[in-house]
Amino acid sequence: MIEANNPALKSWVAVPAQSHFPIQNLPFGIFSSPNCPGKRVGVAIGQHVLDLDVLHTRGFLRSLDLPPGTCAQPSLNALMALGRPQARKLRQRLSELLRHDNTELQQDAEACQQALVPMEQATLHMPMAIGDYTDFYSSMEHATNVGTMFRDPKNALLPNWKHLPVGYHGRASSIIVSGTPIHRPQGQTRPDDAAPPVFGPTRLLDFELEMAFVTCQATALGQSVPVAQAEEHIWGMVIFNDWSARDIQKWEYVPLGPFLAKSFASSISPWVVTLDALEPFRVQGPKQDPAVLPYLQQPGAGHFDIALEVAIQPQNSTEHVVCQSNTKYLYWTMAQQLAHQTVNGCNINVADVYASGTISGPEPHQYGSMLELSWRGTRPISMPNGTERKFVQDHDTVTMRAWGQHNGLRIGFGQVSTQVLPAL
Amino acid sequence: MIEANNPALKSWVAVPAQSHFPIQNLPFGIFSSPNCPGKRVGVAIGQHVLDLDVLHTRGFLRSLDLPPGTCAQPSLNALMALGRPQARKLRQRLSELLRHDNTELQQDAEACQQALVPMEQATLHMPMAIGDYTDFYSSMEHATNVGTMFRDPKNALLPNWKHLPVGYHGRASSIIVSGTPIHRPQGQTRPDDAAPPVFGPTRLLDFELEMAFVTCQATALGQSVPVAQAEEHIWGMVIFNDWSARDIQKWEYVPLGPFLAKSFASSISPWVVTLDALEPFRVQGPKQDPAVLPYLQQPGAGHFDIALEVAIQPQNSTEHVVCQSNTKYLYWTMAQQLAHQTVNGCNINVADVYASGTISGPEPHQYGSMLELSWRGTRPISMPNGTERKFVQDHDTVTMRAWGQHNGLRIGFGQVSTQVLPAL
Repeated sequence: MIEANNPALKSWVAVPAQSHFPIQNLPFGIFSSPNCPGKRVGVAIGQHVLDLDVLHTRGFLRSLDLPPGTCAQPSLNALMALGRPQARKLRQRLSELLRHDNTELQQDAEACQQALVPMEQATLHMPMAIGDYTDFYSSMEHATNVGTMFRDPKNALLPNWKHLPVGYHGRASSIIVSGTPIHRPQGQTRPDDAAPPVFGPTRLLDFELEMAFVTCQATALGQSVPVAQAEEHIWGMVIFNDWSARDIQKWEYVPLGPFLAKSFASSISPWVVTLDALEPFRVQGPKQDPAVLPYLQQPGAGHFDIALEVAIQPQNSTEHVVCQSNTKYLYWTMAQQLAHQTVNGCNINVADVYASGTISGPEPHQYGSMLELSWRGTRPISMPNGTERKFVQDHDTVTMRAWGQHNGLRIGFGQVSTQVLPAL
Repeated sequence: MIEANNPALKSWVAVPAQSHFPIQNLPFGIFSSPNCPGKRVGVAIGQHVLDLDVLHTRGFLRSLDLPPGTCAQPSLNALMALGRPQARKLRQRLSELLRHDNTELQQDAEACQQALVPMEQATLHMPMAIGDYTDFYSSMEHATNVGTMFRDPKNALLPNWKHLPVGYHGRASSIIVSGTPIHRPQGQTRPDDAAPPVFGPTRLLDFELEMAFVTCQATALGQSVPVAQAEEHIWGMVIFNDWSARDIQKWEYVPLGPFLAKSFASSISPWVVTLDALEPFRVQGPKQDPAVLPYLQQPGAGHFDIALEVAIQPQNSTEHVVCQSNTKYLYWTMAQQLAHQTVNGCNINVADVYASGTISGPEPHQYGSMLELSWRGTRPISMPNGTERKFVQDHDTVTMRAWGQHNGLRIGFGQVSTQVLPAL
């Protein structure tokens, strides 16, 4: 067991029951605060953000030999570039400083006062400056549902699907952090196949419940990352809402794939949870049959048991959970995705983002998009305020949450929450 | 007419006949040299690179108020971020300094000696740090050829093709500069539909002859760039070789588009030719019928008459021109592409790259890929050394060139030249 993951550890910083941020998590993010408006690196602990720049400049991280300024950056890129071994040492050191019986920081009142920022005073920013972004399509249930609706129910999965993790390049510029509202996108659609296309706001705005991993080591062009080593390139994970406009997508996507139907926005959670913190949730995934080619054969368990939920909150109403899923349903692992991404020699960079694709489970309440939950609008979802949802409406706030639960502890991602405003 | 474009101008720097880099061009790039190994901004003039950092630090660009260090960067991004009006002033000032009757620089022997680097001593680097990269599919002849080969010759163009510039997100990390060799990529293919897929080097390696434009002004998420203003966001253009592995593409591309078949490498020319320098080559493109939606209706002529050629040079042999095409054959303009890219509110950044898609003309010798030139391998091309080419072979060097010709002057892009090495 990783020492920092010890479920018996308690922190001297108060952590409410069911908090996503006990001492066993320590996810990294970028924050600012009224007292100190510069963006810098923080770690979530209970209801506080721990300011790593304060710890670093005050000498609490001396043993780690971090380059000066690593924690005073507007992104985690510099920290990520140091790789997983350095992140492990840092997380272990923070675990030490925060454990109930350690007095170094706890008894330094001035340092505590400066370094522990109440979460409600912190503004959370984009955690990294993203290089490239890939979106995979790794849930068999999702691919089957989409194939059933739009193609042939008897051959819902295309022939390549079980042989390789299907994916495509996405737009990195429009990835935004939780709390940033979006406007309903406009675009070209063809509602009537016998008439010319029309222009206007999408009528079928949807979320896609995904998780994404972030890489931490650049590779050279031509180099591949073997599947057995791929996880050492994965620094951590975030929740990923891959906003989609279904009517735009339907008209534009042949033959080169989704484009404007996706590129208007994707929302991520602000805290990057390290793969180390997720170790207690490692599980075997679904059996892969037929057997995959050797470059995709991952030794050991490469899946994670992370509970997921999606809630929709209409304006002036309470939120309603519309989906409960789990990353363990994914067919392809992150290591397989990264091995596949690089098998042709494609180079990766620090802070590339690789999203899973919509994570649907086998049961209808586990479907990870409104397209599937409402089955193309044929089964509207009843909301507590008496309205119905086939897709996402203006002023709705969509919130996704993710957490692992183990020994009574939650190791969570917090949430990604985004309000939809009317088209501009 | 733009003053710097005056075809009567001569430079005191020697410019050979048919050079791509007369005083009317002045394309920008990033270079280093044995005497000064730091990367910095240069401009091509005849057979020399003019060192803009030297000019800047010696005060020759004083009138422009460039921020300190703008020309001492390892990319053109800082210069591009100043926008087209500033680039216009800079190009005009360089035109002044270089014209035959201007003595400011010409008679300053020490400055000349330092600022004029013989091209053969210069190493040319990636001209910009690329944000996002989109690849369009804007040649009707190319889309028709591909549709004829792989789908239905009677309905070769898909229904959306004449209504919107079809495009998809590409991989930015693997865009490399001319002169960087690539290795034949490996990947999954399924040569026999009745058998499982196999892994190995691509057997169908291809080039795609494209041009790409580079943006210079960031927009905010939610904002669109109107088609009439789009060109003010376009700083310049480069030649773009969108390397493709046809067998990998065939197996992987449904339903989300090309992925590993493209992401192993794309090669660009090192000199960014400004849109201003290309003004003499502006032409009307093909009539767009049916009429496009209002957001795509561009006032005036948005096409450019730029001659293109592709040559293949087998190892230890002479090169052979296999394709001669022209950007004027493109159906969609750059302004239409950028207006479409942003109509959903997708934000753009400085140094995003937008490639045209393969530029094929109506005649068989104008096809911009081996797939089309050899018609899927059914019409091999005879090479001067007695061999044949259906696709690109190991050790072949593929070179693309592009230039406008006007009043006896060539305004050129130089070339993008890439050798293919065997799979690793």
